[in-house]
Amino acid sequence: MTFFDSRWVDRPAYVTELPGAGLPAGFRAAGVAAGLKPSGDPDVGLLVCDAPNATSAARFTASGVLAAPVVVCQERCRLDALRAVAVNAGNANAATGGRGMDAAAKMQGAGAMVSGVAEDQVAIASTGVIGVQLDADKVLRGLLAARGELSADAASFADAIRTTDAFPKQASLEVALSGGTVRLSAQGKGAGMIQPSFATMLCFVQTDAALSAETADLLLGVCVKRSFDRISVDGQLSTNDMAILMASGAAEVRVEAQTEDEGRFGEALDALLRQLALLIVRDGEGAKRVGRVVVTGGDQGAVDRAARGVANSPLVKAALHGGDPNWGRVVQAVGGALPGSAPLSLDVAIESVEVCAGGTAIPHDAAALADAVAGPEVEYTVSLPGEGADTEVFFSDLSHDYVTINADYTT
Amino acid sequence: MTFFDSRWVDRPAYVTELPGAGLPAGFRAAGVAAGLKPSGDPDVGLLVCDAPNATSAARFTASGVLAAPVVVCQERCRLDALRAVAVNAGNANAATGGRGMDAAAKMQGAGAMVSGVAEDQVAIASTGVIGVQLDADKVLRGLLAARGELSADAASFADAIRTTDAFPKQASLEVALSGGTVRLSAQGKGAGMIQPSFATMLCFVQTDAALSAETADLLLGVCVKRSFDRISVDGQLSTNDMAILMASGAAEVRVEAQTEDEGRFGEALDALLRQLALLIVRDGEGAKRVGRVVVTGGDQGAVDRAARGVANSPLVKAALHGGDPNWGRVVQAVGGALPGSAPLSLDVAIESVEVCAGGTAIPHDAAALADAVAGPEVEYTVSLPGEGADTEVFFSDLSHDYVTINADYTT
Repeated sequence: MTFFDSRWVDRPAYVTELPGAGLPAGFRAAGVAAGLKPSGDPDVGLLVCDAPNATSAARFTASGVLAAPVVVCQERCRLDALRAVAVNAGNANAATGGRGMDAAAKMQGAGAMVSGVAEDQVAIASTGVIGVQLDADKVLRGLLAARGELSADAASFADAIRTTDAFPKQASLEVALSGGTVRLSAQGKGAGMIQPSFATMLCFVQTDAALSAETADLLLGVCVKRSFDRISVDGQLSTNDMAILMASGAAEVRVEAQTEDEGRFGEALDALLRQLALLIVRDGEGAKRVGRVVVTGGDQGAVDRAARGVANSPLVKAALHGGDPNWGRVVQAVGGALPGSAPLSLDVAIESVEVCAGGTAIPHDAAALADAVAGPEVEYTVSLPGEGADTEVFFSDLSHDYVTINADYTT
Repeated sequence: MTFFDSRWVDRPAYVTELPGAGLPAGFRAAGVAAGLKPSGDPDVGLLVCDAPNATSAARFTASGVLAAPVVVCQERCRLDALRAVAVNAGNANAATGGRGMDAAAKMQGAGAMVSGVAEDQVAIASTGVIGVQLDADKVLRGLLAARGELSADAASFADAIRTTDAFPKQASLEVALSGGTVRLSAQGKGAGMIQPSFATMLCFVQTDAALSAETADLLLGVCVKRSFDRISVDGQLSTNDMAILMASGAAEVRVEAQTEDEGRFGEALDALLRQLALLIVRDGEGAKRVGRVVVTGGDQGAVDRAARGVANSPLVKAALHGGDPNWGRVVQAVGGALPGSAPLSLDVAIESVEVCAGGTAIPHDAAALADAVAGPEVEYTVSLPGEGADTEVFFSDLSHDYVTINADYTT
């Protein structure tokens, strides 16, 4: 099995996939069952970096409603020097007020205790049901148990952070730099929403390369924008989204700013996060196909709105699900996303088959197009007037299973 | 059966419902089958006002992609003096380029011929599949046939403008003004989208009151903003939306600006259009329940975005479908609609049961709430900080049938 299995992500030549879920030097992780998930599955994860001078960077959801763990990370952590992450699944600790903040603080304190690092170097993350108070004692007992299970393999950690994910999402890579080979690994979760949880996306990335905190922040920022910021399962923004990159430096290979190695490491990180993001889309609740919409034009704002409009259109998503080359819905979604812009001269192609030019239907081989949209990945290209701006969004289809998952399981 | 059957619309005391689909004095209408719908159902409608000094007002979709009939209306009509409307269903004449414009022009010319009014007093409207050339000859033959069927009853007209509508949407009212009683009638269509059509909303309103064109424009503008602008089946904006108010003056009762009668007439029009808008939501593809979200706060822009965010959230809509009082999804949708606004102190109530105060879950009677959300109409109230701004949006649920209708019928 190949991690880089999407045609939309190229594995850089100097990147090698490693089997299993091995962590880079300087990291240990574990996942245990602490009783937060009714299923009894693993639900508390602990990730520890043993290097005292580790660097880090983090990105968080932009939601106006922030879960307590996000607030704790933003207000009480040295985000450039994180050395541990404590995670729970099964409860998002969101909309839980002062009691939720207390529980998050306890979780951070326990994380510091079991990992032996300062409290402000411990990030915490939660995912699961919202509006229900988190049982901090269960999390604490879970973290204590996880301490005894810490190892250089992240499989149980990747498993513990899952909620509705149909499959775990992780990779372990080697990146050949000029100064030597470094390791890069990541564990992600996210699969849209399931009642009564949130569509939280979490991603934890580790490397044994030595990065300055500034380099880590720059690379993570760019790569998150090109990956997790460019996907949509259902257009919903979570209260809990979080991505954390930690660098132990244990490989004693330094990635300096503005060097070829920085470029290589950045490309490897980019490919890793884009593929993980695509796995989240592919695991979108009930998803059968993944769509990619590429929009070009002269106005970046218009290009962005058009791409989001297509990716979040329930009509486009339902057509994608049905394997239906219904390009009229793409045109309608773009028009709706750009009110007042008529007459809009747009070109549309699906799987490179041109179906609309200058806003007008053009003859095409409908049978060939129908075949082209029956595959697991479907690409839509929209050209707005002008040049210089472009974007892409990856999205899942809208299926019966999405409705079943989100409507039929009533509390 | 009562037209005003939603608890969210009050019939004004001086408004009386009339049985059937009778038109006000000065209007005649007809609908015929012209072969545009594969089903053979009626698909061409003609509405004529016999009063030479009729006044009118119109509102159109804001989409960046406008159907040819919308362009013709906007560019070639005296929108304050319309005397006829020619409509076809089964083909939206959208994304059809120059040929589509020619077909629309022919349709307007034929409408003028069969109704005996000037071309620039004939509005045209289309709804149905897009990206397929309209067979103008069929429409022309349909309009000729409709001329022979014109009558004071709008039932066949209301039927001919339907696409996926499960039921026709029309009303005939009497409004008691100080100067005498006037009639007010309307025919609407819209039910989300069905492959491969657009989610077009059309509404035609007639009265035998005498209105200045300015008054007609003012009243229609206000009432459209409070009705069709406040509904969402699937968040999709059509290329073809249109609302037209025509006043024949045949009742010889004048509604002067800034009089009590203007207020009464406006209230009647408001109730009429709000109820019609609710019927469109209720007829939303696969819909089982109608939701209303009311948002208050201090910032009108934030209030609007929050309300749209809730109404268009597939998670909220799926929960509405399942009769699931999942208020966490409401909080999440509001937070997602207002990025960067954390910490957001919001209150949420569902059917007057308070579930969240100041952003924090509060204890409530879950069983009572579950009962309350099992009915045909569910109300969500969101209070953002501040005062002075408020809005409401009506929305349908997200059902298996929506997916079936929009995904499973592949071309």
